[in-house]
Amino acid sequence: MINQLVDKIKKTQAPIVVGLDPMIDYVPKKILEKAIKEQGETLEAAGTAIWEYNKGIIDAVSDLIPAVKPQIAMYEQFGIPGLTAFKKTVDYCKEKGLVVIGDVKRGDIGSTSTAYANGHLGSVQVGSAVCRGFDEDFITVNPYLGTDGVKPFVDVCKQEKKGIFVLVKTSNPSSGEFQDKMVDGKPLYELVGEYVAKWGEDCMGDAYSYVGAVVGATYPEMGKVLRKIMPKTYILVPGYGAQGGTAKDLRPYFDEDGLGAIVNSSRGIICAYKQEKYRSFGEDNYADASRQAVLDMKEDLASIF
Amino acid sequence: MINQLVDKIKKTQAPIVVGLDPMIDYVPKKILEKAIKEQGETLEAAGTAIWEYNKGIIDAVSDLIPAVKPQIAMYEQFGIPGLTAFKKTVDYCKEKGLVVIGDVKRGDIGSTSTAYANGHLGSVQVGSAVCRGFDEDFITVNPYLGTDGVKPFVDVCKQEKKGIFVLVKTSNPSSGEFQDKMVDGKPLYELVGEYVAKWGEDCMGDAYSYVGAVVGATYPEMGKVLRKIMPKTYILVPGYGAQGGTAKDLRPYFDEDGLGAIVNSSRGIICAYKQEKYRSFGEDNYADASRQAVLDMKEDLASIF
Repeated sequence: MINQLVDKIKKTQAPIVVGLDPMIDYVPKKILEKAIKEQGETLEAAGTAIWEYNKGIIDAVSDLIPAVKPQIAMYEQFGIPGLTAFKKTVDYCKEKGLVVIGDVKRGDIGSTSTAYANGHLGSVQVGSAVCRGFDEDFITVNPYLGTDGVKPFVDVCKQEKKGIFVLVKTSNPSSGEFQDKMVDGKPLYELVGEYVAKWGEDCMGDAYSYVGAVVGATYPEMGKVLRKIMPKTYILVPGYGAQGGTAKDLRPYFDEDGLGAIVNSSRGIICAYKQEKYRSFGEDNYADASRQAVLDMKEDLASIF
Repeated sequence: MINQLVDKIKKTQAPIVVGLDPMIDYVPKKILEKAIKEQGETLEAAGTAIWEYNKGIIDAVSDLIPAVKPQIAMYEQFGIPGLTAFKKTVDYCKEKGLVVIGDVKRGDIGSTSTAYANGHLGSVQVGSAVCRGFDEDFITVNPYLGTDGVKPFVDVCKQEKKGIFVLVKTSNPSSGEFQDKMVDGKPLYELVGEYVAKWGEDCMGDAYSYVGAVVGATYPEMGKVLRKIMPKTYILVPGYGAQGGTAKDLRPYFDEDGLGAIVNSSRGIICAYKQEKYRSFGEDNYADASRQAVLDMKEDLASIF
């Protein structure tokens, strides 16, 4: 799957992943009101509304980008109906030929990590049947529990030819409280980066490993160091745009040939129609605004090479 | 909710939480076969089977214990039908008067953590209605992203009078890879423990904070230190029984009066009928075997005071 991701990035010339992280107040009024009219003021209506909203965006941008990253928390907050919308979104994006990175940040120990890995990347057996729960292509994983928390995900990736992105250095302001602490003469995130490189070694695609890393756009100096520590690791970069990361900051995350990293934008794309710059599209044409925002992001990123 | 948990522990004289972590091969054949007969070899059948299995155990042990801890991964692996079984389990346990600790180990940044917190502990608004997704009493939280990853959970706890248990030192063999690393002259888990104590300060019940900690039974020396660093923090202790922690190891996690900690057992209780010791109950009476295992665990823990 890492090979497919790289191929799609080359083909689209866009190292961009669109974060499908719908907040209910991003959803245009017409869509939400229609759902409430049909299903009442319920979680079901919320699930329907965010799914309809997503579908509009996916249809408008799918030919421009290699991948999407739905953030499961935004669906999980609406309980079962929300997670049903998550699943529909994953399935639809795959139908459209997009690589789907489930931003689930799961992580536990042993058999519990195996259960998460099976549910999101692999399969479970029921009687003699093999069934799939959510079936994303990649997911994000939290490393705090160490190798025996991450290894079960890697094992499922090997079987399924799928991938993970392990949190190394996150984009938020207080990420340094633990991640930047000096251990054995280097910051903890570097140590985690070394483990990520090691976990990925026997799990290689053509040029990059199935085991990727998350490194926030808001810390470009650290991105530069981590790029060197993890030479075969694809880097998923959140924090561009709304969180403050600029295109200029992103150069160090990429290899010479412009591969090696994929940059996420969520709000900046999916909620473009609320920005001054794209307001002229109007709420009804929110998806067209998203398309224009992707084109603008593509141009912005191209400027760094 | 921390006050309710403490009251229930006093009343039952059992600082025990039963981990409802069903694997499909724990489920007695009759239950699984019935579900498959009715729903085919599907995720729906798996969901039905684990829910029926759970219900038997809950009915057999609910008068003996204060709390249960369903591990969401074990449900999530079966996709939407699995998560529906999780929700039914949570709701049923609450009806039975049990405190429900959702072992979800979520953790993200800012608005994303807020979404998880709303989905599992709080509510979301749809139109003018306030709706609840999963609605556990407590959940477990991963601290790797720092204060702005954890704070949104604490905020919802304050509003809802609910609680969290933050991972400090986990019970698995490789937990030390990052958690034990020396930072500023102390291991990382101690630093995280200090943060947990701080996060919990303005979030107090009568004697303990709404912000608790997870510290594995397999590291009693560390438990002793962490008990002192976090004097107002309730400690959730996994790793007893199947993972190797013994009752003797657990004394340091408790305060003088026998409060301050609650010990989890999962496999040791819910799959008791497969152990040599309880085999005479037979598969049909798996729930009675679980009841006996709870009584034995209670006696075992009482021996340390």
